[in-house]
Amino acid sequence: MTYCVGIQVREGLVFAADTRTSASFDDVSVHGKLHLFEVPGERVFVLLTSGNLATTQAVVARLRRDMASPQPAAGLATARDVAEAADYVGSLLVAAQAQVRDAAQHGVSVEATLVIGGQVAGSEPAIMLVYPLGNAIAASPETPYLQIGESKYGKPILDRIIDADTRLEDAARCALVSLDSTIRSNVSVGLPIDLVLVRTDALRVAERLRLDEDTPLYAEIHDTWSRKLEAAVRSLPKFAWEIPAPMPLARDVRVDAGDAQQQQQQ
Amino acid sequence: MTYCVGIQVREGLVFAADTRTSASFDDVSVHGKLHLFEVPGERVFVLLTSGNLATTQAVVARLRRDMASPQPAAGLATARDVAEAADYVGSLLVAAQAQVRDAAQHGVSVEATLVIGGQVAGSEPAIMLVYPLGNAIAASPETPYLQIGESKYGKPILDRIIDADTRLEDAARCALVSLDSTIRSNVSVGLPIDLVLVRTDALRVAERLRLDEDTPLYAEIHDTWSRKLEAAVRSLPKFAWEIPAPMPLARDVRVDAGDAQQQQQQ
Repeated sequence: MTYCVGIQVREGLVFAADTRTSASFDDVSVHGKLHLFEVPGERVFVLLTSGNLATTQAVVARLRRDMASPQPAAGLATARDVAEAADYVGSLLVAAQAQVRDAAQHGVSVEATLVIGGQVAGSEPAIMLVYPLGNAIAASPETPYLQIGESKYGKPILDRIIDADTRLEDAARCALVSLDSTIRSNVSVGLPIDLVLVRTDALRVAERLRLDEDTPLYAEIHDTWSRKLEAAVRSLPKFAWEIPAPMPLARDVRVDAGDAQQQQQQ
Repeated sequence: MTYCVGIQVREGLVFAADTRTSASFDDVSVHGKLHLFEVPGERVFVLLTSGNLATTQAVVARLRRDMASPQPAAGLATARDVAEAADYVGSLLVAAQAQVRDAAQHGVSVEATLVIGGQVAGSEPAIMLVYPLGNAIAASPETPYLQIGESKYGKPILDRIIDADTRLEDAARCALVSLDSTIRSNVSVGLPIDLVLVRTDALRVAERLRLDEDTPLYAEIHDTWSRKLEAAVRSLPKFAWEIPAPMPLARDVRVDAGDAQQQQQQ
């Protein structure tokens, strides 16, 4: 399996992906699922992939060939916005799946699901999820993130934290926690993590990181998050039976004259 | 769907369950999924149910009938420990499913999955998950919780917080957060929440709560948890580019004599 997430906030876009692929428990390997397509100052796209690896690699190869062409007829080099790019990616996805049409007879799923996001000069930044059918949905201010793959473990943290006003770096930290939670709870999702930040109107990748077990930033996040959560759980409201009955106030206590000084010293 | 979790720590057991059942989006209702069987001072069992409601109600009805019998031949009233209780519950579960054997022809799943936990005098406390086949697995110090139903959303918080040494009340707070996260991310899981705490060797229910939207404790947990998480995300390590370059130290700055006082005033 896979876990990828794309987040859209006012300040920009965050993309994060794990890198584990598996055909079975004894056939596990590392493949990047985060792909960059960039003409700095003019356009930037990030593609996240999940599903059949042959299908997604065929789509990515075709997108790269298109981009490299000196006079591209279509594709990410000519798309006027993210929606047009998603349409094009969807058509490549459907074609790649159709090429191996006999798959169903072999009991293999060749389907893939993708997230594409970015910005083209003169249009708004956006992220979209492309279904195996080739159609797509966009993130919105009410649902400012899109997930593919093993999405359930990492969803609560996104639901609670992310909105359009979240700072871009906080959204990136949230994405890392979302990935880390998923990796911890599901062995089919694994390190390293690829992370990309794109700032609104920058039309280029702002930051690109690969985080592994021994990357200091990731190790620190991984180590400190559990402690912070534990402190947060412990600081939640007490149950009624945990709250000790209130101590009698001094004025409610009858004090013998001889006891007065002793009381004050306590 | 459903989400229930049973947690075992050294201090005792925590059981939590949502109460939403649905046959379809337009057929949603509230049914308790947490069932108590108690002979105070001698034995206490808590049963959590998920799956087909007719099946789980048949099992619970039979368990209650057995308990009420003046001379029970088998069942929760005579089981010597939780494992024996789980065996019995498993046999009832298989029988209840078999009664509606034709279900497959109607495209209905009559399967259910249960968690049973508690303690019998003279034996150790335990929690066990009973599969539709009637067999069961126990929680262990390495995996001190068992979930049924929509388990993925609420798993990361358990994985990060719970171990055998977690305080019983902290485990209960963690269960509530795990439920709350699931309720927030999945509409098929809903309020109110049933919560039961059983202390080791008490052989009775220590605390029993039903928490709804307007229960002050739940409202407070629900409201504060997102804020605490947000603070925790914000306090995670900064990315390298967020850390400003260090200011030159005073002794590294060449100061003209005439500037000295001005510098100090800044």
